[in-house]
Amino acid sequence: MAAAAPPPPPSAAPEPSMAPPETTPLGHPLFTRIRLAAPSDVPFIHKLIHQMAVFERLTHLFTATESSLHSTLFRSPPFDSFTIFILEVSSTPIPPLPSIYPSFTSIEKTFNFDIPINDPEEDAFTVNFGKDQIIIAGFVLFFPNYSTFLGKPGFYVEDLFVRQCYRRKGFGKMLLSAVAKQAVKMGYGRVEWVVLDWNINAIKFYEQMGAKVLPDWRICRLTGDALQAYENANV
Amino acid sequence: MAAAAPPPPPSAAPEPSMAPPETTPLGHPLFTRIRLAAPSDVPFIHKLIHQMAVFERLTHLFTATESSLHSTLFRSPPFDSFTIFILEVSSTPIPPLPSIYPSFTSIEKTFNFDIPINDPEEDAFTVNFGKDQIIIAGFVLFFPNYSTFLGKPGFYVEDLFVRQCYRRKGFGKMLLSAVAKQAVKMGYGRVEWVVLDWNINAIKFYEQMGAKVLPDWRICRLTGDALQAYENANV
Repeated sequence: MAAAAPPPPPSAAPEPSMAPPETTPLGHPLFTRIRLAAPSDVPFIHKLIHQMAVFERLTHLFTATESSLHSTLFRSPPFDSFTIFILEVSSTPIPPLPSIYPSFTSIEKTFNFDIPINDPEEDAFTVNFGKDQIIIAGFVLFFPNYSTFLGKPGFYVEDLFVRQCYRRKGFGKMLLSAVAKQAVKMGYGRVEWVVLDWNINAIKFYEQMGAKVLPDWRICRLTGDALQAYENANV
Repeated sequence: MAAAAPPPPPSAAPEPSMAPPETTPLGHPLFTRIRLAAPSDVPFIHKLIHQMAVFERLTHLFTATESSLHSTLFRSPPFDSFTIFILEVSSTPIPPLPSIYPSFTSIEKTFNFDIPINDPEEDAFTVNFGKDQIIIAGFVLFFPNYSTFLGKPGFYVEDLFVRQCYRRKGFGKMLLSAVAKQAVKMGYGRVEWVVLDWNINAIKFYEQMGAKVLPDWRICRLTGDALQAYENANV
C-alpha cells in the first residue's frame, strides 16, 4: 500500500513558517529529524504499518510480523534495496547524528506551532537516545526501481505514513522531499509512487510537489494461491 | 514502460502443443532457453529496449545508451536488484547451462511449429556459444519490491518484450511464468507489473494467468526538471 495518509494540499493546511514573524512571541518549537531506520526500529515500524492498515481499513491484508520485517529488511546497505527513513520529533533540540553512510546525512528542521501537539501515543513511540527523549512520528519506505528507457534507476515509494496527531503540518512533504533529494543526489531519473484515484486532495498535493499522475496505467498483481500455482509451472 | 507487447490471450493464439499428436509428422522444432543476462548481453538488451520504445511510439523518451545500461545493471547478484532473463531460441538443441547461482537454473523448453519462424533480424540477434548459434528473442527485466502489509518482498516486472516475429507463440507467458516461479521459489508474496487500461487483450491474458488488475490506483511520477528541483530542497 503506497503513500498512505498523505498530507492534504497546503491550501487546506498551510505550512508552518520556519520562523515566526518578529512581532510574534515564540510559539511551541518542534524539532524534527529524518534519519535512516535501523533494526532496533522494527517494533516501531511494525506498529506504524499496523496503524496504516487500520487507516486504510485493510487490516485483513496485514500479516507482517516483527519477525518477518527483521528477516526481510536491513539486508543491504541503504538505498541499494528496501530503505526506510524515520521521522522523529522532540520538544528539545535533537543532536545531529554521525554520518555512517557517506551517501546520506540526517536531516534536521525546526518547526514552530501556535499550540503544542498533543500526542496520545507518545509513550508507545518514544526512543531514548541517552538523556534525549525522541518520538517517532512517521516513516517512508522506498527502494530502487529501474527505467529501461532512461537506462538508469529511480526510487519507488511504497509507503509514506505520518501518525494522526502529526498530520497536516508538512511532515509528509518533508519525508517525500527527502526521498526526491536523495534520488537527485544519486543521479537517479525518477521517483514514483501510487495514489488512489478518488483521493483528490492527495493528487492535488502531489501535483503541487511536481509529480504527474499517469492516467492510463493499471497495476496487475499476482499473489496468494494464484502465485503459488507457479511453483511447479512448466514454463 | 512495463510489460510491453504482451502476448494476446490464448483464444487468439493457441499455445503450440509441446509434442504433436502421434499421427502428425514432426513439424519445425524450436528449442528455447531462459537464462540470466550477463554484461555481454548489453548490446542486445539495448537494441531490444529500443525496439520496445518504437513499438510503444515512445522513442522521444528513449535516452538509454549501452554505457548507461552497463553502469547501472549487473551491480548486484541476480534477484537482489535489477535482474534480466533472456529468452533464447535455436533450431538445434540448446545445451543446458551450468548453474552459477544456486537460486536459479536455466529453463529449457521445446516447441513444435507447423511452419518455421522467419526471423528477418536473425543476424543482429545471434549469439555464438562455441559451435551453437543461438538467437535472442526477448527479455524480461524485474527487481524486488516490498509489501509492508505482507512483511515480505515481491518482484516488480518493469519490462517484458518479445521480438515481433516471435510473438503470439507463448513466449511472453513463458517469461512471465519464469518470474512468478522464481518468486515462489524465494518465498516472495507478490509479482506486480502495469498494463495500459485500453489494452483489453493484454488484461484478459494477464487475468488468465491469475493476476488481478487493481482499478483504483494511479501512478505518480516525479521526473526531469520537477525532480531536479529537489536537489537543494530545504526538506
